[in-house]
Amino acid sequence: MIYFQCDYAEGGHPSILKRLVETNLEQTTGYMTDEYCSKARELIKKAVGKDNADVHFIAGGTQANLIVISSVLRPYQGVISVCEGHVAGHETGAIEATGHKVLAIAGKDGKLRAEDVDKYIYDHYENASFEHTVQPAMVYISFPTESGTIYTKAELEALKAVTKKWNIPLFVDGARLGYGLASPECDITIRDMADIADVFYIGGTKCGALFGEAVVINWEPMKKDFRYNIKQRGAMFAKGRLLGLQFETLFTDDLYFKITRHAVEQAMQIRNAFQDKGIKMFGTSSTNQQFPILTKEQKAVLDKDFVSEVWGETEDGKIITRYCTSWASTDENVKKLIDAIKSL
Amino acid sequence: MIYFQCDYAEGGHPSILKRLVETNLEQTTGYMTDEYCSKARELIKKAVGKDNADVHFIAGGTQANLIVISSVLRPYQGVISVCEGHVAGHETGAIEATGHKVLAIAGKDGKLRAEDVDKYIYDHYENASFEHTVQPAMVYISFPTESGTIYTKAELEALKAVTKKWNIPLFVDGARLGYGLASPECDITIRDMADIADVFYIGGTKCGALFGEAVVINWEPMKKDFRYNIKQRGAMFAKGRLLGLQFETLFTDDLYFKITRHAVEQAMQIRNAFQDKGIKMFGTSSTNQQFPILTKEQKAVLDKDFVSEVWGETEDGKIITRYCTSWASTDENVKKLIDAIKSL
Amino acid sequence: MIYFQCDYAEGGHPSILKRLVETNLEQTTGYMTDEYCSKARELIKKAVGKDNADVHFIAGGTQANLIVISSVLRPYQGVISVCEGHVAGHETGAIEATGHKVLAIAGKDGKLRAEDVDKYIYDHYENASFEHTVQPAMVYISFPTESGTIYTKAELEALKAVTKKWNIPLFVDGARLGYGLASPECDITIRDMADIADVFYIGGTKCGALFGEAVVINWEPMKKDFRYNIKQRGAMFAKGRLLGLQFETLFTDDLYFKITRHAVEQAMQIRNAFQDKGIKMFGTSSTNQQFPILTKEQKAVLDKDFVSEVWGETEDGKIITRYCTSWASTDENVKKLIDAIKSL
Amino acid sequence: MIYFQCDYAEGGHPSILKRLVETNLEQTTGYMTDEYCSKARELIKKAVGKDNADVHFIAGGTQANLIVISSVLRPYQGVISVCEGHVAGHETGAIEATGHKVLAIAGKDGKLRAEDVDKYIYDHYENASFEHTVQPAMVYISFPTESGTIYTKAELEALKAVTKKWNIPLFVDGARLGYGLASPECDITIRDMADIADVFYIGGTKCGALFGEAVVINWEPMKKDFRYNIKQRGAMFAKGRLLGLQFETLFTDDLYFKITRHAVEQAMQIRNAFQDKGIKMFGTSSTNQQFPILTKEQKAVLDKDFVSEVWGETEDGKIITRYCTSWASTDENVKKLIDAIKSL
Repeated sequence: MIYFQCDYAEGGHPSILKRLVETNLEQTTGYMTDEYCSKARELIKKAVGKDNADVHFIAGGTQANLIVISSVLRPYQGVISVCEGHVAGHETGAIEATGHKVLAIAGKDGKLRAEDVDKYIYDHYENASFEHTVQPAMVYISFPTESGTIYTKAELEALKAVTKKWNIPLFVDGARLGYGLASPECDITIRDMADIADVFYIGGTKCGALFGEAVVINWEPMKKDFRYNIKQRGAMFAKGRLLGLQFETLFTDDLYFKITRHAVEQAMQIRNAFQDKGIKMFGTSSTNQQFPILTKEQKAVLDKDFVSEVWGETEDGKIITRYCTSWASTDENVKKLIDAIKSL
Repeated sequence: MIYFQCDYAEGGHPSILKRLVETNLEQTTGYMTDEYCSKARELIKKAVGKDNADVHFIAGGTQANLIVISSVLRPYQGVISVCEGHVAGHETGAIEATGHKVLAIAGKDGKLRAEDVDKYIYDHYENASFEHTVQPAMVYISFPTESGTIYTKAELEALKAVTKKWNIPLFVDGARLGYGLASPECDITIRDMADIADVFYIGGTKCGALFGEAVVINWEPMKKDFRYNIKQRGAMFAKGRLLGLQFETLFTDDLYFKITRHAVEQAMQIRNAFQDKGIKMFGTSSTNQQFPILTKEQKAVLDKDFVSEVWGETEDGKIITRYCTSWASTDENVKKLIDAIKSL
Repeated sequence: MIYFQCDYAEGGHPSILKRLVETNLEQTTGYMTDEYCSKARELIKKAVGKDNADVHFIAGGTQANLIVISSVLRPYQGVISVCEGHVAGHETGAIEATGHKVLAIAGKDGKLRAEDVDKYIYDHYENASFEHTVQPAMVYISFPTESGTIYTKAELEALKAVTKKWNIPLFVDGARLGYGLASPECDITIRDMADIADVFYIGGTKCGALFGEAVVINWEPMKKDFRYNIKQRGAMFAKGRLLGLQFETLFTDDLYFKITRHAVEQAMQIRNAFQDKGIKMFGTSSTNQQFPILTKEQKAVLDKDFVSEVWGETEDGKIITRYCTSWASTDENVKKLIDAIKSL
Repeated sequence: MIYFQCDYAEGGHPSILKRLVETNLEQTTGYMTDEYCSKARELIKKAVGKDNADVHFIAGGTQANLIVISSVLRPYQGVISVCEGHVAGHETGAIEATGHKVLAIAGKDGKLRAEDVDKYIYDHYENASFEHTVQPAMVYISFPTESGTIYTKAELEALKAVTKKWNIPLFVDGARLGYGLASPECDITIRDMADIADVFYIGGTKCGALFGEAVVINWEPMKKDFRYNIKQRGAMFAKGRLLGLQFETLFTDDLYFKITRHAVEQAMQIRNAFQDKGIKMFGTSSTNQQFPILTKEQKAVLDKDFVSEVWGETEDGKIITRYCTSWASTDENVKKLIDAIKSL
């Protein structure tokens, strides 16, 4: 069986494995104070064009989300997210476990709209009972979104203008940042992201690393004491070098961008194959996740050789199915899938 | 100015004040271990027909809600509420501050529907990623609802059947319980409520007391150690006798039921006055809160003598306005309001 | 039986009851936005000599403690308290339930020593693993202490100097503030307290009110949004006027100071009676709580007519017993107790 | 420079690296549902002799501690730990951040004594104000302790008897379990540990793995829904296979036990070298951590070639210094250190 089920089915990029083996018996200090972390921080700051940013490494996305959000909010404050946002529904209440409400707002194509955010915050302060409701104090989006869609630069800048107006940080969950930036519809660079986001993270787990997310902080009040938060939530990695070394590798010779771009190209080929066959896609994903709407018969045929994930069902009984490529997808496997689609 | 703005504009029923004065210099033990609390507990258990219930007194509704809910849930569990539920939107994230997500579901007329709750829980366990989402483990409703509507006995029994099926408690916020039971549309008694709810509270603050809610617990696992929760959340009232004495008074000679019934009768007269005038009501409240939809001109006229609360605005620019009666509303003031309505 | 067991055995001062009755049917707005609260705030600000202070009313001491502390601390920060501090041991982990560790330090006579606090904070930042330990970010003391002792002005100023040095607030729990200020050993006024404490509260529950504590905030960062915290923790009293009215009464004609001074004078008479009898006192309380060390025989005699509280046991089997006076203690009852002591 | 500073200075055991490389491009399901995790679970259950245990993998020790503890306790409950316990002082309040107080008790040689625990719990329930204090509901120890000492089997069984008497779980933090079991003073096996502990974890991070702890649960109420807790706290490792594969390797051919035994033998040689030189040791560690009390001169000499960690200072100005061996310490480096000690 060939997996297109998710983008974390394999280990890590071979370059990373190689570096792990090479450096394995070196002795370093712990807790991200080692040379590899320092080097990785410098490479990332250079890549994003922010000398003054703080960069921290955290093993996983839910941890990154809960640490970033709880480090900013006062007890009575909450974070705005689109209803489909990862923090809103797919982290077992991780944010609430830190004491904060996720303020879910309906969006469009999985994206928050700046005007809705502005209105939500405006309404909060206009309401006579405002103190009886959670104060919105951060905006969370993901890039790309859960369903693979992409904010345009204009949309991001509009969101930034709103958060700046209200003096709250804009936080971008970049678990799949590499795939987002590689999208043919993407009109920003990682430097633009760093200009716009007050805090964001560069996802490693799904983009070539064995594990790890690099949190980039521009928002001044967050910088102080951030490592206490990391320790308190259990994310102070003892052998922090493992994180540093992975990001050093990914940000050497643009590896991060090369491997995610290739995966998105593969995904576009797969999308085209489905569309050529007259199969409609769910949503407008232009990233590494593709969501064809298959009849049960079509799915049964593909399921013989390829593992995918059921994403939902349409009213007329068809199945929204997710196919993911990743840095690890081979052209050979992609070709096999495309051939199978053609023969449907 | 005459207030119809809310049901907590005055102090407490004169019988309560009288008892407070009479007993003021008596010496009792603290923390709800006194005789007045014991007596009040007995009267309430008799009134609700549950010898084995545990009864606790808590000063306010938000406290009662957060203590009850957090005493039951495990960290990864949440409470289901209708979107308009008080815990979902009007307590500044009090439930989230105890670590739990409020799982908001759309309802009808402000009421949760049993089939929606059942489907929500069913879907949770069916989902392949169920462990990545908050486990629904309690159902919260209020009786009457925020907008004054009333669950029928059949609706309550259907909700109870669902919670029983999933073995989770049904919690009824009865901040305005007295007004709900006095509604002409209400087909249950307080004994029915005690049969159906696994835990509920009898609102005092809005129904004749200076302050205080009586929590009635039937759900066995909640009974053990409940007082620790009360203390931890800052609700272990030092002079608990003040709570006991108020509920003793309210549950002597059916005072609680008499005064809330009178307020609802007044509210019905006010509703009829609006309707006779061709003014439409927002929603279908049959309790002490009434929501006429007024033109700005109509509102301006009434505002000269009567304080009300803006509840919302209709698309055509009319104002949804709340008029509340309470145990303290005088027939004289109600007559003045009705006369003013008639003269619109 | 005559109670000297605690200082919350009776209701409230008759002047308060009188005012409650007089104003009972007046209509006011809710949630501490009424005239009585405004008036009480003005009276308190005048009494403490701080025009710019913010004053909030909260029903009980544990609530006040947990709201004040959690409103200030970041997630990884804790509050320093002497080991015997109320927040350290007698509130069922109320502070921890808001996510914060109470950093307990040994004191002397129930009092924190400035040099110990300074050393504790200094050591924190000197430690190579400082990020692996809770950051001390507030100092909590009570005045008087749990065992009735009194900080001198010099001791308070030394604590203030340390907290100022580290730029963290000094919080004074004044649940029995009135009795502390009335102590013959007290060398400060309430104005001094307001000069020294960054935030403190004036205890009402034990000092003449039915219930209620008045929190006085001088620390600027705490002022913003404090009412959200009050609401979130369930302490936004619906009929806030009840709190305002009580403090208005207590701060009219120095009632608060007169009644607590009288109680302390009674306590001193009781202490003298014990000492005249050759009975040793536990600790050096000069406030309304007195702790004679009684033989079992002595206690048995006094227990016939007087209720007291067991505080502990000495190694030679004697019983440390607490006798409390309060604003409600009558001279007649005090005389009876003294006569009983004399006849031991 | 040669590091003896800690036991996490290197990467992972070469066998683990080898397996990571071999399996890197295999496709597996995520979140610990893969074959490697299954295999590792089976190997661990066999090694500990518990067919019915549940085994979960968590990336780090603080995470394991906070997840295990918060999964068991009700909001008003706390966990008993010796004052020096890791959860009591070295995790930035991670347990408090989940809402629970760590109830710190003085021990002996870094170990909790069963009779002290029993008395503490007994006293809690005997206290008239028991509801005003945190209810002890779990006992936490580490094996070996923070300072490298070892509980005897008799001591462990005594603790177990106490926890069983009070019906609360005994939780053993085994971050250095391998080194503890390899101590010449250790009189238990890992099977004994699994018989005694209601829940414990087998430390990987410090004992050969790149990272990872294997939590073994015998306590029935913890088993249900444990994975929700893992997800909520951000510890649901996407590529769980990395954890499974490491523990599979460590529990194949007794690798875990062989490498930790070797490290302890090295530590014993180092200890002997210090003692032969007349240098006293701090405490009685018989595990991989050794704490010689060095003069400043002695330390300066050793510091030329060897990195160690300052643990404390004696009153006469000597320095308690920690030297750690680990699975990665080479005999060559150990010999160099011993030679240096001899030449002091």
